[in-house]
Amino acid sequence: MRIFVDAMGGDFAPQAPVEGSIEALRRYENIEIVLAGDLKQVEPLLKDCDDVRGRITLVDAPEVITNHESPVMGVRSKKNSATVIGMLQLKEKLADGFVSAGSTGAVLAGGMFRLGRIHGVERPALAPLLPNGKGHFLLIDCGANVDCKPEYLQQFGVMGAAYMKGVMGIEEPRVGLINIGAESEKGNALVKETFPLMEKAPYNFIGNVEARDITADQADVLVCDGFTGNVVMKFMEGVAGTLMGIIKKEMMADLRGKIAGLIAKPAFRRVKKMMDYTEVGGAPLLGVQGNVVKAHGSSNAHAFACAIGQVIRMADGHVVEVIEQGVAATQE
Amino acid sequence: MRIFVDAMGGDFAPQAPVEGSIEALRRYENIEIVLAGDLKQVEPLLKDCDDVRGRITLVDAPEVITNHESPVMGVRSKKNSATVIGMLQLKEKLADGFVSAGSTGAVLAGGMFRLGRIHGVERPALAPLLPNGKGHFLLIDCGANVDCKPEYLQQFGVMGAAYMKGVMGIEEPRVGLINIGAESEKGNALVKETFPLMEKAPYNFIGNVEARDITADQADVLVCDGFTGNVVMKFMEGVAGTLMGIIKKEMMADLRGKIAGLIAKPAFRRVKKMMDYTEVGGAPLLGVQGNVVKAHGSSNAHAFACAIGQVIRMADGHVVEVIEQGVAATQE
Repeated sequence: MRIFVDAMGGDFAPQAPVEGSIEALRRYENIEIVLAGDLKQVEPLLKDCDDVRGRITLVDAPEVITNHESPVMGVRSKKNSATVIGMLQLKEKLADGFVSAGSTGAVLAGGMFRLGRIHGVERPALAPLLPNGKGHFLLIDCGANVDCKPEYLQQFGVMGAAYMKGVMGIEEPRVGLINIGAESEKGNALVKETFPLMEKAPYNFIGNVEARDITADQADVLVCDGFTGNVVMKFMEGVAGTLMGIIKKEMMADLRGKIAGLIAKPAFRRVKKMMDYTEVGGAPLLGVQGNVVKAHGSSNAHAFACAIGQVIRMADGHVVEVIEQGVAATQE
Repeated sequence: MRIFVDAMGGDFAPQAPVEGSIEALRRYENIEIVLAGDLKQVEPLLKDCDDVRGRITLVDAPEVITNHESPVMGVRSKKNSATVIGMLQLKEKLADGFVSAGSTGAVLAGGMFRLGRIHGVERPALAPLLPNGKGHFLLIDCGANVDCKPEYLQQFGVMGAAYMKGVMGIEEPRVGLINIGAESEKGNALVKETFPLMEKAPYNFIGNVEARDITADQADVLVCDGFTGNVVMKFMEGVAGTLMGIIKKEMMADLRGKIAGLIAKPAFRRVKKMMDYTEVGGAPLLGVQGNVVKAHGSSNAHAFACAIGQVIRMADGHVVEVIEQGVAATQE
């Protein structure tokens, strides 16, 4: 299996992607990695990996599509960027997976216009795994599609269920629709129209899930438009951070609390790790004709290795094929 | 000043509203309270309040609009409900404020169809105060309007700013728009069209606020459609609960943590109190021709007294008049 890694994407590139690739090669013996980037920067980082060096192919990709330019223009004009080269390699079946921590917009645009959608898929979607204290749920979409039609949301359910089955091994993933009430008649125009479509879709639709239950482990896949999903994903980070800050402040307010804080340090460290969504790798871009994972911009080497593991499991779980079959079933 | 209280609304009615009214009468010497409900149930609760009994008027309102019926049908047919009688008393200036912990839909429908909108207001909105660790921000709308037009959101800013100035005493409230990015060109169709309208509105518009910064004290008023707002409000409750549950579980996992948990109990109690949004009273319904507060369904007597205090401050702060002037200014 060949995984294509964008060595220039993310806050700690090229170190983090290169070191993460080396970690992944040591962890997964049956893979090869294509490292694409500015080779002047990438090559010097490969001096201490003789054990896996033979399984690394270098591709010169000196151009970078940054967060500050139009993603669509970027993938159109920067043909020597890792994003464009990688998406074309996926399309030509020269690679089995693609990982980047670069511009989200560029990964989306590259997926749409260079790789292409799965037959029948209306809109690819970004779907991070988020923690709920017991495990993880897949949130789809988290920002690729800020204005949605009911049919898109119905398909997000197909895509999310395919991922949770193929990658996470859940036999019949529970698919829920994020809404403002549990009753079927609740919601804005979009979700009201979506509900009956999801009821007849070929997956285990469990109905509406209110926002207070998003982290209550009611569903494995939570479907929403990309605006709502982006708010949910980022608000989760914000509330958790604010709450931890308040707890810290209140504990530091008196001697009692200070002592307790010192004693409880290992417990708090475990909590932090559990809430850390970079631990699970990145967000898969579902609905495109290949296995694409968008790693968090702040990914370190370990997070990169996790994202590479994730894209391997997507390939092993035949997520693309399962989505294609599922989408066809919704259109019968 | 006369405050009309729905004695039959909420999970702990009639005890909580009646006892909360008595508490408020003792706290605020210049008010009278109209208690409306099933008098067979209400009167027996008044035996230990001779000190304030003279400032209580009873109104027989045996009908109740429940959460399980159509709010619009309810306010149309149940003329002997506290909601309908109260809204009409507000309209006739027989009361200066209205507090209910009953059906949110009934309060909205009563406000719209029995009391009426402020001249120029497109859509009244529900606007809870939520904690951010430093103080509170007003979230508008949290569910009254699940499908919005840009003009509604522009007006929500007027309404929210009027409340934060009149009730919370903030001279120039910072008004933000909840969005998926900080840049002005970000967002779905609704917020993209709303941004320029808010830029020229007669309040201190500070631009987009990403969801991770909702609790970062960047704005005093956060504007969004009612679907997004409902998700934000309920998700905040859900994430906080889940996170506190994880912390508890991790602390109970070993002896160290258990000891720390015991020592830190007072600190955790302060955190819980700080995150408890029932402490601030209820959510004002802004944009109607009177001072209306929807108290939380689970309000106890103390929460009711707080909600009554809140509606008094709305009257004192002339929130209705300030909204009317502000809305007129957006239409010039």
